[in-house]
Amino acid sequence: MNAQRIGILGSTGSIGTQTLNVVDQHPREFLIKVLTAHSSLDLLKTQIEKYKPEAVCLVDEAKADELKKHVKGSIHVLSGYSGLDEAARWESVDTVITAVVGNIGLKPTLEAIKAKKKIGLANKETLVSGGPVVMEAAKKYGAEIVPIDSEHSAIFQCLKGENVKEIEKIILTCSGGPFRGKKLHELEGVTKEQALNHPTWKMGGKITIDSATLMNKGFEVNEAMWLYDVTADKIEAVIHPQSIIHSMVEFVDGSIIAQLGTHDMRIPIQYALTHPKRIPLNVPKFDFVHAKQFTFEKPDMETFECLKMGIEAARMRGTVCCVLNASNDTAVEAFLKNEIEFLDIQHTIREVMNAHKNVHHPTLEDVLSADKWARKETKEILMQKTDLRKNKV
Amino acid sequence: MNAQRIGILGSTGSIGTQTLNVVDQHPREFLIKVLTAHSSLDLLKTQIEKYKPEAVCLVDEAKADELKKHVKGSIHVLSGYSGLDEAARWESVDTVITAVVGNIGLKPTLEAIKAKKKIGLANKETLVSGGPVVMEAAKKYGAEIVPIDSEHSAIFQCLKGENVKEIEKIILTCSGGPFRGKKLHELEGVTKEQALNHPTWKMGGKITIDSATLMNKGFEVNEAMWLYDVTADKIEAVIHPQSIIHSMVEFVDGSIIAQLGTHDMRIPIQYALTHPKRIPLNVPKFDFVHAKQFTFEKPDMETFECLKMGIEAARMRGTVCCVLNASNDTAVEAFLKNEIEFLDIQHTIREVMNAHKNVHHPTLEDVLSADKWARKETKEILMQKTDLRKNKV
Repeated sequence: MNAQRIGILGSTGSIGTQTLNVVDQHPREFLIKVLTAHSSLDLLKTQIEKYKPEAVCLVDEAKADELKKHVKGSIHVLSGYSGLDEAARWESVDTVITAVVGNIGLKPTLEAIKAKKKIGLANKETLVSGGPVVMEAAKKYGAEIVPIDSEHSAIFQCLKGENVKEIEKIILTCSGGPFRGKKLHELEGVTKEQALNHPTWKMGGKITIDSATLMNKGFEVNEAMWLYDVTADKIEAVIHPQSIIHSMVEFVDGSIIAQLGTHDMRIPIQYALTHPKRIPLNVPKFDFVHAKQFTFEKPDMETFECLKMGIEAARMRGTVCCVLNASNDTAVEAFLKNEIEFLDIQHTIREVMNAHKNVHHPTLEDVLSADKWARKETKEILMQKTDLRKNKV
Repeated sequence: MNAQRIGILGSTGSIGTQTLNVVDQHPREFLIKVLTAHSSLDLLKTQIEKYKPEAVCLVDEAKADELKKHVKGSIHVLSGYSGLDEAARWESVDTVITAVVGNIGLKPTLEAIKAKKKIGLANKETLVSGGPVVMEAAKKYGAEIVPIDSEHSAIFQCLKGENVKEIEKIILTCSGGPFRGKKLHELEGVTKEQALNHPTWKMGGKITIDSATLMNKGFEVNEAMWLYDVTADKIEAVIHPQSIIHSMVEFVDGSIIAQLGTHDMRIPIQYALTHPKRIPLNVPKFDFVHAKQFTFEKPDMETFECLKMGIEAARMRGTVCCVLNASNDTAVEAFLKNEIEFLDIQHTIREVMNAHKNVHHPTLEDVLSADKWARKETKEILMQKTDLRKNKV
């Protein structure tokens, strides 16, 4: 059997490095052909030495120039967003892991789809913003999209051998984040540090805030809807603070299939590469007796309005989903810079969503223009809020 | 699509009547052709009126004679064990549900296999006693065996689309029974009523005692070993008092798939009939928020030695598994008649197992002769114990 040739978009991030760990465990099964990073020059250099890819890309042009001076031999050094697109469609690659952060994942994912690659999708924003465009392209070019997100990998595994028409309900589990159990007024004035203190998963800053607002779960409703071609009313979120069950599918006969185990992203990463096969993976074994208990709660959508808005957007479909993502992106960025308060995130997104005119069957251009509009609109509203608060003080 | 033609061996018992409820919910999908009972004449009469089968059987010959006087038209009334065998191979039947209690299920199951029926297996003893014989016959005649036991149906569903070679471990969940948490000395002198008070499942007397001793789980280790062609060391039992997860499979990549939901045997019964398809079933929906929590404990195999012996027998294979079942049958019968004490069950089975000379690759005759020997041996040991106790008093 020939080794599976892999390109990783975002090889220096959390998913990227864990993908490389999976590759390290199976040198005969996997071969790295392409690596890309936004600006982490040093780590990328180390990865180049170790994996000797055919091509690499740094989105940061200046750093790419610096890298060119260091790279020996026949390695192609690409740069900028066009370099990322080129990396995504790199000819000798079989499977592209899209692990870049944020909306910049959409275009290279579409490039990889057009090049008929198998896509290991770790970039949530791609489907939230561009769901209709991406799924249509995947269908047209016959590209397979396999989820890497732990919840969607769980659903993907629960659906193995099953017929999606026999789904009664997809049950997305949700840790509840650091503010689980809090009421709306208790979230006034919570700090960035409190919001970044996620109880179960260690992840990047943006996604950790999305977990604190439950927007992350709202996005996942959208992702699941596109990945499994079900309507949003068949997708439900349930709080499961231990995050042991990664998600479930209930079927029309009342039977429920769940995927669970150790919190280790290498499991869904490897499964995306090997499915429908499974191969050994060296991860800590899950111990039920040690775990002791799993608990469940209903999500509080009045307090965590981001989840509610995520579900609403999924029911509406169209550009509003992209607006949800772009507005959230902008607001979370401002929160991480200490420019706004935690609850400003959800209040602002609500205003932006309300102001948006939804395009139900969008083209890529519609999506990109909605994205741009939402970012601008969000910034303006945030500025008004901040000014208002300053004037009060 | 033609309706699936069903024969139920043991139609008046718990599994039998629930199978008929599934049939009632889908009159176009299923058609009853054969019904059999041990001696429940009145209920069988009612079922005959409702389902108008081609053939019926009462194992009790006198009651069969009585039934013959009442049955009108062209319904064949069979009787005795030979009648049960004939019912099992009845020509117009596609699927045979073997829901008879105890060891009498072995022969008719083999008859159904030889007639190339699909088998919905609800009779545990068939595989525990006759595993090697039954599985060899199923292979030879190309008959499919689908489990109805909730744990094995769970495993069967978890393995959908998977490769059994990629199994790391089968995890059988176990409610722990009414004596969970008790130490050995606390089980001295427990009454039949205490043992029959199962915390989660309502079942017949014999299987409820088997759940109290954990022999039921020991049997299930044997069943899983035969059904999924794995060695006993890949099967583990874990106590899960809420019985919501019905069993799980861990794969070589560390991923765990579980089947869970409402405690309702109609789910595995219907799945045995429709798999790989699922069709709607009217059962109470499972509510995670209401369930609140799942807990897990390690089984105490010093106190519940029946589980330990079940695992030992599975590791040894051969006629010792049949001896385990026959000795347990005899001892539980005596306990249900108040002739012996609760702990006599496990102590006696241990003595009988120790005295047995295992035949590793048994024929049907070896199995039947081991069964006979074990019942006799068990009775003798129980008699000695009772006499000894009487003399002490």
